[in-house]
Amino acid sequence: MAIKALVFDAYGTLYDVQSVRDLATKLCGAKGELITQLWRLKQLEYSWLRSLMLSYEDFWSVTRESLEFSLTAVGIAPEPLLCERLMNKYLNLDLYPEAIQALEGLRDYKLAILSNGSPAMLDALIESSGLEGRFADVISVDRVKTFKPDPACYGLVEPALGVETSEVLFVSSNGFDVAGAKRHGFQVVRVARVSAAAAPENAEIEPTEFFRLLRGAPENLGHVADWRVSRLTELVRLLDGIRN
Amino acid sequence: MAIKALVFDAYGTLYDVQSVRDLATKLCGAKGELITQLWRLKQLEYSWLRSLMLSYEDFWSVTRESLEFSLTAVGIAPEPLLCERLMNKYLNLDLYPEAIQALEGLRDYKLAILSNGSPAMLDALIESSGLEGRFADVISVDRVKTFKPDPACYGLVEPALGVETSEVLFVSSNGFDVAGAKRHGFQVVRVARVSAAAAPENAEIEPTEFFRLLRGAPENLGHVADWRVSRLTELVRLLDGIRN
Repeated sequence: MAIKALVFDAYGTLYDVQSVRDLATKLCGAKGELITQLWRLKQLEYSWLRSLMLSYEDFWSVTRESLEFSLTAVGIAPEPLLCERLMNKYLNLDLYPEAIQALEGLRDYKLAILSNGSPAMLDALIESSGLEGRFADVISVDRVKTFKPDPACYGLVEPALGVETSEVLFVSSNGFDVAGAKRHGFQVVRVARVSAAAAPENAEIEPTEFFRLLRGAPENLGHVADWRVSRLTELVRLLDGIRN
Repeated sequence: MAIKALVFDAYGTLYDVQSVRDLATKLCGAKGELITQLWRLKQLEYSWLRSLMLSYEDFWSVTRESLEFSLTAVGIAPEPLLCERLMNKYLNLDLYPEAIQALEGLRDYKLAILSNGSPAMLDALIESSGLEGRFADVISVDRVKTFKPDPACYGLVEPALGVETSEVLFVSSNGFDVAGAKRHGFQVVRVARVSAAAAPENAEIEPTEFFRLLRGAPENLGHVADWRVSRLTELVRLLDGIRN
């Protein structure tokens, strides 16, 4: 039952996928906010749909296809140059500000990433955020050509790190990822940085609120996290508690 | 290449899933519209996620779990009595008004339904809408314990109807379903009743618009429909054209 390895989700957990908003707003004006939300929702949908259709393409392709859909949906032509500028932000998403301090405090454990990202995307992210050398392994689901929460993805962890399933603490902010990791048998911490949006009383809603309503709360899929933290640095104290 | 069978998706294609709105508004006030949209999006997400996690539960369960999530998300307790009243609407969703005339005009073909719905849900829907006896078969994905667009679902059609893949014209308003059916090899018609929402210029957006932006346009998944109609009755003329 002792934890030997901490495995982190990347997008939304270590890296802020909402950090595309500034660039989207700079390039697309007032529609930038809406594009930010549609893009992320569609990116997740396409990862699930392509997995389910047995039509895997890597996460770079899925991210590009979902961006093109989202731009078209709001009436902006998905010109190659515009898409490339937005796509490049996925190679240097903002690291959550407390991430480095948290990883530093957890260095007694084997640390790893398990991500939907393609190997090239993850290499670029880790380099741009200065996290080289922090992880025992950076595991891309590309090794099994399907996306989370397909059980095959979580099954990559144990052989890669040389640990047992029960020795892994999996850390994710994504509800579907929490459910998939729990179903696989990991111990799981949910990172809930924002509380679920307050219920709006008016007829209209900001796209960010809609996104939070759809993705902010734990999913009702029969598997719940063992613990919940609001910042990554809380993991240090949590692990001290588990150890004692 | 001659069409022998027409296979219809049920939810969103023959039956209006948005017809839960009036009841949701009656029972939940101004939040009814938001609940309507969250519920449908979450219902689809859970069907994909449970399939991908190899944790199939039937569509009644998925619909109930997504309703509970959606009510909770907007700050309404998912009391059993409230949930049951809303769930019951799924047993008598509104049939699209032109559906009966369309089915009447297509009676020279083998007609069938292929739906995510559980057998009990589909039986109730067909009875409440007066469509008994119209279909050669009503095929539920429950026979293979996974949801569309898993290829196993589409593979139920040929043995059930005694036809070849190329003899099937599949009819759906759901973009992911169009992609799945095309990938399987059916000829496919997309039903597009509403054009994609106009791009909003303001910071806030109605939940229905957000839903249409996310689900209204063809999906960018590498498979497109062969034809597009805006009403089911257009299928009669379309098939006359294919035959000649």
